[in-house]
Amino acid sequence: MRLAVIPGDGIGPEVVTEALKVLGEVVPSAEITNYDLGAARWHSTGELLPESVLGELRQHDAILLGAVGDPTVPSGILERGLLLRLRFELDHHVNLRPARLYPGLRGPLADPGEVDMVVVREGTEGPYAGNGGLLRKDTEHEIATEVSVNTAFGIRRVVTDAFNRAEERPRKHLTLLHKTNVLEYAGSLWSRIVEEVSLEHPDVTVAYSHVDAATIHLVTDPARFDVIVTDNLFGDIVTDLAAAVTGGIGLAASGNMDISRRNPSMFEPVHGSAPDIAGQGLADPTAAVLSMSLLLDHLGQKEAARRIEASVAFDLATRDQSSPGATHSIGDRLAALVSS
Amino acid sequence: MRLAVIPGDGIGPEVVTEALKVLGEVVPSAEITNYDLGAARWHSTGELLPESVLGELRQHDAILLGAVGDPTVPSGILERGLLLRLRFELDHHVNLRPARLYPGLRGPLADPGEVDMVVVREGTEGPYAGNGGLLRKDTEHEIATEVSVNTAFGIRRVVTDAFNRAEERPRKHLTLLHKTNVLEYAGSLWSRIVEEVSLEHPDVTVAYSHVDAATIHLVTDPARFDVIVTDNLFGDIVTDLAAAVTGGIGLAASGNMDISRRNPSMFEPVHGSAPDIAGQGLADPTAAVLSMSLLLDHLGQKEAARRIEASVAFDLATRDQSSPGATHSIGDRLAALVSS
Ligand SMILES: CC(C)[C@H](C(=O)O)[C@@H](O)C(=O)O
Ligand SMILES: CC(C)[C@H](C(=O)O)[C@@H](O)C(=O)O
Repeated sequence: MRLAVIPGDGIGPEVVTEALKVLGEVVPSAEITNYDLGAARWHSTGELLPESVLGELRQHDAILLGAVGDPTVPSGILERGLLLRLRFELDHHVNLRPARLYPGLRGPLADPGEVDMVVVREGTEGPYAGNGGLLRKDTEHEIATEVSVNTAFGIRRVVTDAFNRAEERPRKHLTLLHKTNVLEYAGSLWSRIVEEVSLEHPDVTVAYSHVDAATIHLVTDPARFDVIVTDNLFGDIVTDLAAAVTGGIGLAASGNMDISRRNPSMFEPVHGSAPDIAGQGLADPTAAVLSMSLLLDHLGQKEAARRIEASVAFDLATRDQSSPGATHSIGDRLAALVSS
Repeated sequence: MRLAVIPGDGIGPEVVTEALKVLGEVVPSAEITNYDLGAARWHSTGELLPESVLGELRQHDAILLGAVGDPTVPSGILERGLLLRLRFELDHHVNLRPARLYPGLRGPLADPGEVDMVVVREGTEGPYAGNGGLLRKDTEHEIATEVSVNTAFGIRRVVTDAFNRAEERPRKHLTLLHKTNVLEYAGSLWSRIVEEVSLEHPDVTVAYSHVDAATIHLVTDPARFDVIVTDNLFGDIVTDLAAAVTGGIGLAASGNMDISRRNPSMFEPVHGSAPDIAGQGLADPTAAVLSMSLLLDHLGQKEAARRIEASVAFDLATRDQSSPGATHSIGDRLAALVSS
């Protein structure tokens, strides 16, 4: 297993260290190559993602990314030039974001019920396409446009993936989130494709929810959701909310996946670089460790993946919630559990 | 005071009746004209919003709308052809949505704190512009686009309104919600205009939050928000979430306002037509009554508006939360409180 690691900025390197510690217990033979992309490289060389590095990344089985973002870099530079560029160049069309309320955890809801959902967020088009522009800049007549680009090809592959995942789950339930009553064109294409693909999956129950109403459901009855499929921007919004509802962004893992396997998939905690707590051993590496579990699952190491997830579940159920420990000691605990 | 009333579909007529009952106590001289727009009219005549009716609506001081939407009408027809058309034709650029957790109420959060915010949602552009289309429909190469159109003119007037409202509030705090790290063009225009307008309001503290992060804050620390200003689609999403957090969509009021006063503003509960409970006296008319309070405030009847809001606050604090009563008895209680 050849693994590329992009520790990145802020707490990225700290949480990545712990994820690799855990990996060492289950796949000690993994070959790791580090790539110093992020704020520091941009400051010293102006580079975000050189072609040569992109070429090298492509030679790996998978990528683990810590976090990207730094207050010394203007907003958007690293996000668009590095993180989104990786997702687009490597055709990461399935942005997979499970949200599970682990036993023993309390999120912000008084009465959440049993929450265990997975969001399949489209990752390579929609409002993220970067199409748009400014006209008459800096005049009172300025106009800014943003074009959401949605293709049958792009939608069908994520919808198919979402149905396949729903098939594998006990409840076999899939919800399309969109805003079809306003976004007539994109909404129509998404709805038609979900309907088409559903014909091949008669045992999956299909529901639809407007994205605004879904935010209500996510706080009043999150247990209703099983698999959610949605576009890039709606997925961005609801996965942060789903993470918050299930105990916080500190636990949320994600995979940016090329389901065709032509390119390596990239796994990352949903949390950002959290510069305010960086370098102090305060970050919870659990989301990075769970991202490693998703990575192993994607590479077919199902048993190792399950072991990591079970260890996290055990640690979350038994840890002192108010002081879960320093970054490295959480990593030590998880590594010990995984190897036990 | 000349008031146009569009009871609409589902529970719309029921909640409107109670709002008018309350109005009768504070402004008995109000002249009411009913307009039968909605699903029934569309079914019998195919009309959504005839020009003649639009012309008549313009002759009023304000409009009260119950709800629009019916399962027998294909999704989007009434929304785009009636509700959004009214908002666009009547230039309702400020979509005002207060979200307050009234004393005595429990929302879904275990520990919400004191929530009292107001969202100023842009109402006439952004992704709601209806610009977009389908190419190669019903082929595997189909493409659907949606263009978000954002103008300096359109943004400046809502940002100015939001700052004016922040000035009037004790905390004088304003948060711009957007997704500037991805939506580079629209994000840049919104940010620059907020910065410009903020120079005229040195005593208002300005914050920025990405819309995805804001959904986290809305469930972990909603009390941080005072005035939020945001675009049409982000506003749609976060106001449903804010309503849920403050006790539910059954209490959320809104104003679709033309701040220039060239056109009548339109006030409506945020909840929809709820066809499943229509005609049974089960709907809570509180959101409609609070919308009437916003309407009166907009027309300069500040004292009447405050009286209605205080009556609602009292009723919410003292009602039996598990069975607040039938639609008409809640209306009776509120009418009695208002006149007492
Ligand atoms: C940092 C940002 C570009 C990114 C996104 O919007 O996708 C993040 O919010 C995420 O969800 O991974
Ligand atoms: C019904 C729909 C068109 C509308 C909107 O999206 O604005 C509704 O959700 C709202 O928030 O008033």
